[in-house]
Amino acid sequence: MKIETKVEKFTDALYLESGRILEPYELIYETYGELNADKSNVIVVCHALTGSHHAAGRYEGERKAGWWDGIIGDKKAIDTEEHFVICVNVIGSCFGSTGPQSPKYPSATPYRLQFPVITISDMVKAQRNLFTRLGIHHAKAVIGGSMGGMQALCFAIEHPNFAKQHIMLASTYATQPWAIAFNKVAREAILKDPSFNNGNYDPQNIKKEGYLGLTVGRMAGYISYLSPHSMGDKFGRMYDEKDGLYDLFGKFQVEKYLDYNSRNFVSWFDPLSYLYITKAINIFDAMRNYDSLEDSLSRINSKITLISFKADMLFLPSEMKHIEETMKKIQKADLTHYVEIDSDYGHDAFLVELPKFEKIIMDTLKD
Amino acid sequence: MKIETKVEKFTDALYLESGRILEPYELIYETYGELNADKSNVIVVCHALTGSHHAAGRYEGERKAGWWDGIIGDKKAIDTEEHFVICVNVIGSCFGSTGPQSPKYPSATPYRLQFPVITISDMVKAQRNLFTRLGIHHAKAVIGGSMGGMQALCFAIEHPNFAKQHIMLASTYATQPWAIAFNKVAREAILKDPSFNNGNYDPQNIKKEGYLGLTVGRMAGYISYLSPHSMGDKFGRMYDEKDGLYDLFGKFQVEKYLDYNSRNFVSWFDPLSYLYITKAINIFDAMRNYDSLEDSLSRINSKITLISFKADMLFLPSEMKHIEETMKKIQKADLTHYVEIDSDYGHDAFLVELPKFEKIIMDTLKD
Repeated sequence: MKIETKVEKFTDALYLESGRILEPYELIYETYGELNADKSNVIVVCHALTGSHHAAGRYEGERKAGWWDGIIGDKKAIDTEEHFVICVNVIGSCFGSTGPQSPKYPSATPYRLQFPVITISDMVKAQRNLFTRLGIHHAKAVIGGSMGGMQALCFAIEHPNFAKQHIMLASTYATQPWAIAFNKVAREAILKDPSFNNGNYDPQNIKKEGYLGLTVGRMAGYISYLSPHSMGDKFGRMYDEKDGLYDLFGKFQVEKYLDYNSRNFVSWFDPLSYLYITKAINIFDAMRNYDSLEDSLSRINSKITLISFKADMLFLPSEMKHIEETMKKIQKADLTHYVEIDSDYGHDAFLVELPKFEKIIMDTLKD
Repeated sequence: MKIETKVEKFTDALYLESGRILEPYELIYETYGELNADKSNVIVVCHALTGSHHAAGRYEGERKAGWWDGIIGDKKAIDTEEHFVICVNVIGSCFGSTGPQSPKYPSATPYRLQFPVITISDMVKAQRNLFTRLGIHHAKAVIGGSMGGMQALCFAIEHPNFAKQHIMLASTYATQPWAIAFNKVAREAILKDPSFNNGNYDPQNIKKEGYLGLTVGRMAGYISYLSPHSMGDKFGRMYDEKDGLYDLFGKFQVEKYLDYNSRNFVSWFDPLSYLYITKAINIFDAMRNYDSLEDSLSRINSKITLISFKADMLFLPSEMKHIEETMKKIQKADLTHYVEIDSDYGHDAFLVELPKFEKIIMDTLKD
């Protein structure tokens, strides 16, 4: 599989939903496979909150492959012998696309809290600009899970002639208070940490020292990505034997898991990006700027596949089902395919339980 | 209804499950109604993590009545014209019973982190000592929700001849990793706040300033007490209109709810008590010191009523069901009554949706 990582610079303004502008801006993206002559084999993959453009393959010396490597590759469900896959790091993120740590032109000082609030529509608009720049005006499919699914839905509604297929997994039509509440814990933990210092922390320093606020807040995220069942399977009541049971600071395995992952998280993700991207997720609402969900979904004139996971505790199957039901109401049942995957894993099933849904993706791409 | 609040001092040692001792110790408790001549009308009510002995009635000038006032009182489900109800503040708590902020005898300095780890069994043992001191050797029932339910189960197993009836609501036989994970967020938030200062904070100061760590951590608790459905009902996607939607710090109603309650929480609850009581909850396991749950439940020789709530996200109905199934397995089905209440509210249903289960409690007490 041919992998390329590239950066594209835009000197014209990106007009944001908020009325503010981002100018200039950059997008980092990765491609897998080769674009065919008539550019008809493009598949856009959209990443989630803490994901990046690195969706598949493994860089030299890299311990783990890209976040959806199990499904993107030669002879895999998203077959790169046949397709040209593009994954773009969203604006606001911290892996190379313009975000709050980028210099605020013309100065060399980072935006930090002066970065504008971005929305899912803005992320999608920027991607669309990139595709236009690359001479790609149509895609076979846009696919994404969680926040990536929001982007797929946004493509379907706001760019209805761009892709033939949209596949959203473990996502929603509008973020509900339950998910906003989980994000709230992380956001407050970041803001209340004195070392956040109104956004003026030194990014290198927090990597070294472990950013205390975000480590705590991220734990709430990890809970929401699993389920009581998957936690029971993974950890049960296993307790570190070195710790006495009656030691106030003794730890269960599940606590060690949360400690390890949240500490590690801070070494590769930026707190300001976490604030901005969770904001984009919180205010995501496919009805905004439309009269109703019926009205907004009526813009869709291509196919949409909705894959939910039974034990998803963050974006419930009922939220995806609501999209299907609304599509039926507006006589677009023929464009809609809803599947609830029988999985106890929780929200992260879209990253983990690939064998349970990769055939659906394969079949959809053949359609 | 006659209400009395009293403190009982014990100069003899309380031998704890950990092997450590608490000496001396005090228990604060509240009673409702009057003890009859043959002391046969006693009902013990056990409180949850942040509850207190103040289960019912309203003190002069108090804004809110006791935490289970809807169910305890004259002509209420736990009828105080007929019963003598006792609720004891657990050791480790911060409402008057001995806890980490109590002076470590013979000094006048608080225990703080030198306070011993306590268990649910220890809480129950201390209560039992109080009842003995009051000349009460038998109760009609022990009732409690959440951590109170753990105490009720512990009474049934470890003090099998004390009460005729045990009613546990929204609880479990052993705390599962999902609940431990929610507690973890709060525990880490407390510990990582620099102002925690290894437990040597000034309790008065944190009340004034709002204890940042605990405020963030407590939000995770509030999430676990509700459900996606009840949050949807309560808050939906309501957004404070004063805040612009594209303001990074603009807030949804659910965020304001979490802010308000967590800030308020710190004014009435102590971070060290939170650490000690969540520890007791985390290590609660009715199988500990027994070969199996069958073995431990085989000690029970009085009735147990298990009331679970359909949308309880903290202690799942399946955990309570597991107690019933195990009781059946050991031929104690006749002692067991399991009911799952159809409620979307979440864990806090045991505090909120009283009309849905008060008849079960009334009927059980008539039995």
